[in-house]
Amino acid sequence: MLHTRDMHMITRPLINGARLWSRHEELAQIGVTSGGGVNRQALSDEDSEARKLFLSWCSHRGYAAEIDPIGNLFIRRPGLRPDLAPVMTGSHLDTQPTGGNYDGIYGVLSGLEVLEALDDAEILTQHPIELVVWMNEEGSRFAPTTMGSAVYAGKIPLEDMLRVCDSTGVSVRQALTGQIARLPALKPRALGSVGHAYVEAHIEQGPVLENAGKQIGIVEVIQGLFAYQVEVTGFEAHAGTTPNSARRDALVAAISLIDRLREIARDEQDQTRFTVGRFEVHPGSPNTVPGKVQFSIDLRHPDAARLASVGEQILRVCLGRIEGCEVTAKQVLASAPVHFDPRILDVLQAKAKAGGLSHMRMISGATHDAKYVAVATPAAMLFIPCAEGISHNERESITQDAAVIGAQLLCDVLLELARPAHRASA
Amino acid sequence: MLHTRDMHMITRPLINGARLWSRHEELAQIGVTSGGGVNRQALSDEDSEARKLFLSWCSHRGYAAEIDPIGNLFIRRPGLRPDLAPVMTGSHLDTQPTGGNYDGIYGVLSGLEVLEALDDAEILTQHPIELVVWMNEEGSRFAPTTMGSAVYAGKIPLEDMLRVCDSTGVSVRQALTGQIARLPALKPRALGSVGHAYVEAHIEQGPVLENAGKQIGIVEVIQGLFAYQVEVTGFEAHAGTTPNSARRDALVAAISLIDRLREIARDEQDQTRFTVGRFEVHPGSPNTVPGKVQFSIDLRHPDAARLASVGEQILRVCLGRIEGCEVTAKQVLASAPVHFDPRILDVLQAKAKAGGLSHMRMISGATHDAKYVAVATPAAMLFIPCAEGISHNERESITQDAAVIGAQLLCDVLLELARPAHRASA
Repeated sequence: MLHTRDMHMITRPLINGARLWSRHEELAQIGVTSGGGVNRQALSDEDSEARKLFLSWCSHRGYAAEIDPIGNLFIRRPGLRPDLAPVMTGSHLDTQPTGGNYDGIYGVLSGLEVLEALDDAEILTQHPIELVVWMNEEGSRFAPTTMGSAVYAGKIPLEDMLRVCDSTGVSVRQALTGQIARLPALKPRALGSVGHAYVEAHIEQGPVLENAGKQIGIVEVIQGLFAYQVEVTGFEAHAGTTPNSARRDALVAAISLIDRLREIARDEQDQTRFTVGRFEVHPGSPNTVPGKVQFSIDLRHPDAARLASVGEQILRVCLGRIEGCEVTAKQVLASAPVHFDPRILDVLQAKAKAGGLSHMRMISGATHDAKYVAVATPAAMLFIPCAEGISHNERESITQDAAVIGAQLLCDVLLELARPAHRASA
Repeated sequence: MLHTRDMHMITRPLINGARLWSRHEELAQIGVTSGGGVNRQALSDEDSEARKLFLSWCSHRGYAAEIDPIGNLFIRRPGLRPDLAPVMTGSHLDTQPTGGNYDGIYGVLSGLEVLEALDDAEILTQHPIELVVWMNEEGSRFAPTTMGSAVYAGKIPLEDMLRVCDSTGVSVRQALTGQIARLPALKPRALGSVGHAYVEAHIEQGPVLENAGKQIGIVEVIQGLFAYQVEVTGFEAHAGTTPNSARRDALVAAISLIDRLREIARDEQDQTRFTVGRFEVHPGSPNTVPGKVQFSIDLRHPDAARLASVGEQILRVCLGRIEGCEVTAKQVLASAPVHFDPRILDVLQAKAKAGGLSHMRMISGATHDAKYVAVATPAAMLFIPCAEGISHNERESITQDAAVIGAQLLCDVLLELARPAHRASA
């Protein structure tokens, strides 16, 4: 893969750390929350605003921008050989309702920085380089998570996703149409293009790198994720008149159920991730015994067999009756662990070593768009540390140094994969 | 109290069962839900619509209507002696989000039916009779419950209540101003008038009468009600990256807390009513560990000492830390058990007996506006059975026979208390 002859002929392109950082600061203003984070959920006004600003940066450098039918954006820096598949990078600009300023954003801005650093150093590549902004990675407004990359990879039907509605009844189709109307004209492109390689830079969102004192994580595997929607149906009753023995309280049943589910998911190594993040009680009136509870389960593990086994037990417990209430559950996501491409991992490791960076191989606890890109394109990820592992939280933070180190490594790796050529001016 | 001489000179006024029932059916269309119940929360468009229809019935019979500063409506049938305090009856027209067609509505329509039955029979009374429609008895949109009667009785400051907001930020003041603009012009009146007596008819909302095979419940006491708002604060974290041991999951802590609280409230006689009806999880995203949970506690018992003791234990447990999360709680309502006026209870019993009705003395499990009216006016309540004790539920139901029997008893009792005179035509 490495073309030593070419490499010797070019200057190493350097990341502009000030530019990279100021763009983070600028984007952090769009959807800013009182707690210093951002609320920029997919296809919201704020998301449209952020994409508009991002596209203005791209068009300023003359990069062509395209959009696919699910709203993923593709920014292209041409290569010398248009017949070659692009080397790809990317991440997302949407956030959690009370999200931070780096989750996703860092990968997009690092990718843009790579394109510009190559321009600034007047370097050409054999392969085109494509920067992707995936639509709706977070899945907090429109479920499921990593919607854009899943549709791109053909793993979920486009039409099904366009029909998904948020809690106010607005569909992805409506919201996407609204967003496109607010963006500059973009060339449409089909779903499912295949790249030569894909490398995504991301903040770790966990404490491993910080605790180990490492600058770079080379991600070998994304743990598997199963998601469930559970519904507990009891009977609404008057809080003052209905004795305990006569109640079918959906909240009491849901609590008892979650106690049992947490027991099932417990393991000695503390490796299984079990989360109930959405929990809605109906009718939600203080003086009415709840008649219905709906809640989500997010279950993750790096080992496919363990994940399948816990998932099976969850479905078994969530069927039937508990505390007089009916329980039903459906699995809404079954994503097996994904192992990244060993050759790209080797390039990442070689370049980290060459750059004198402390690094380690690791598992990703979070899911990422790279998981779906990996279906058809050799893919991998690099992580940079974030403070105390805090993410999906307004207090998420990284240092400028860590950001520059990661972006420089991304640049070195993408350039290697894209096969550098002479300087443009040469 | 009974003036036998007068009674012998008048015909017993008779309730028009068909009229009473058809009005229930007409009101049931305003805010009708898919489950056959109603969603007519206080000061909503639907509540305004219901009050407008009700006022049209009143003005059709020529009754004067007044409104006090918290939005309680007063309908007056004059007496021969305007210097005498009115005999009062009433209830409410607002409902739970998924409420039934009789809770509150029955007491208002029975009261109106009494006024009209007296007119139809051309009967005059010494005391005026006033029918009250209390504002926001349910408290589901604007907390607390029985807001209108509490302000009327001077138990909660008017200004505080006008500032209360619903979950969308609309205040009682704004919503009330909006409603008044939609109603016909009403004469304003001051808060806190005192009546000669108050009798409220209501569906039982529990299974006691049905199980005992009785037509009428004579309510001696309304059990006490303490209400609390609890907040559990953890730390938002990524569901995929954060190990169990590193989480401060507000949902997990709230579940554990509720388990402990339910244990505290448990009693062998199954007399303590403990309900968590509202339970909100933030940020409510499937892949974020919840950082905050807010929930309500509704605690009731007929015995003041037991109520105080359980309440004290609840506050003690809801202060400090649980599962790594901070817990705070505040009491938002402290309403002691209320004992009704023994003389009115005797009149109710005598008239039930005279009417050949099966009846029993009982406790009210639910709270009612009568509780606050009783502060300054001798008061009592009568209950009619409802099917299976189901209330605060779209399936709430009563029979037309039960409705007519209760309204006739209300008529007999109000007439007795208001001291009947000669026929108007005599």
